[in-house]
Amino acid sequence: MDVVALEEIRRLKYRYLRSLDLKRWEEFADTLDEEATADYGTPVYGEPLKLAGRAEIVAFMRDKLGPDIITVHSCGQPEIDIDGADATGTWCLEDTVIATEYRIMIRGAAYYEDRYLRGDDGVWRIAHTGYVRTYEAMLSFDDLPSFQLTANRWAGQPTTP
Amino acid sequence: MDVVALEEIRRLKYRYLRSLDLKRWEEFADTLDEEATADYGTPVYGEPLKLAGRAEIVAFMRDKLGPDIITVHSCGQPEIDIDGADATGTWCLEDTVIATEYRIMIRGAAYYEDRYLRGDDGVWRIAHTGYVRTYEAMLSFDDLPSFQLTANRWAGQPTTP
Amino acid sequence: MDVVALEEIRRLKYRYLRSLDLKRWEEFADTLDEEATADYGTPVYGEPLKLAGRAEIVAFMRDKLGPDIITVHSCGQPEIDIDGADATGTWCLEDTVIATEYRIMIRGAAYYEDRYLRGDDGVWRIAHTGYVRTYEAMLSFDDLPSFQLTANRWAGQPTTP
Repeated sequence: MDVVALEEIRRLKYRYLRSLDLKRWEEFADTLDEEATADYGTPVYGEPLKLAGRAEIVAFMRDKLGPDIITVHSCGQPEIDIDGADATGTWCLEDTVIATEYRIMIRGAAYYEDRYLRGDDGVWRIAHTGYVRTYEAMLSFDDLPSFQLTANRWAGQPTTP
Repeated sequence: MDVVALEEIRRLKYRYLRSLDLKRWEEFADTLDEEATADYGTPVYGEPLKLAGRAEIVAFMRDKLGPDIITVHSCGQPEIDIDGADATGTWCLEDTVIATEYRIMIRGAAYYEDRYLRGDDGVWRIAHTGYVRTYEAMLSFDDLPSFQLTANRWAGQPTTP
Repeated sequence: MDVVALEEIRRLKYRYLRSLDLKRWEEFADTLDEEATADYGTPVYGEPLKLAGRAEIVAFMRDKLGPDIITVHSCGQPEIDIDGADATGTWCLEDTVIATEYRIMIRGAAYYEDRYLRGDDGVWRIAHTGYVRTYEAMLSFDDLPSFQLTANRWAGQPTTP
């Protein structure tokens, strides 16, 4: 068992999730292989979402996840198999999306099914990421008169990135 | 410190959780020792629930968790001690149960206290699993007129397993 | 890569979180360096909260988190860098606080930014812990007529610690 590679791949995934939630798009881009593909089964965006190439994935996220969208991607339970410079991994995700302007919250869970590649530079990157939703639910804050957003990291930031 | 055994036990737990949420009962069964016991302190089922033997645990889950029940078991923070072929572990759990037919959601948290055994085949299995609830709360979707289940992995599946 | 130190630091963090949620203040104290500082950006307590020294941190928690307050700290996604006897770590936190008497729930997420020290006794302890909130939201159960707390680990315990 290559415990060092396991640590490297876990850390890669955590960097992907953190840079996504913190809207650090350059750091996010660097977790993806240039040819990376993504397959997010989020019906909120209509059809299942298939993206191809680092540039397209980053552009999509940067465009959709401005400062009016709070995201939290909570992910664990890695089951990773390594075969040389290739690896696969499944992960349990729970995600929260708050669209502050529209006063809605989306909450869901999914199992990620990822592929990873170790590049010629020795660095693991995401070759494919995707998930199948266990469930996803949407709720308007208008149902909850007492609801208050008491902290928001993105409050007061200009909406044009 | 036996970091390989730590990885193996973590992965065992993640397989248990994933096969439970994905209702893969054969894979779930294989994570349990034949003599495994389980002690789930879920007051929703009435008395604290004590199950004995792999067959009884699997039969209970298969019976209770049909396609009208969505479960998400989100679990981390392992503190594992290994002593030869025996091990113990505590874990923090947050679980969500959505009973789509009854339009209720149960949300709770607990600390698992597990025991693991490495069999003669070299494979770690769960010898005992159980938890003490930190809290558990129940809610009807009828309180939330805007609530929509926008994805459900089990939608449209026959209710007879 | 020092995988043993990585395991030790993760386990330290998990012990900190478990002893906090289980109100085991002696075990909690032992996870902190005597000179530890803490910086919790929880606006619910008014000004950003800065605490200095193990004794002050433990006294604050013991005072604020009596049996009428249920807490769940769910934390993962460690990105840890080790440099000799010093280390830093970021973690993704989702926390739930239920104030049973006031019938409110606070739910939020944050990224921890911690520092760790390995003492002369070879044991890692928390030198600094703090976080920046991604979001925090508050809700009264009065908005949810069907809401029931079906389990509470602290129910019936005297409120004076």
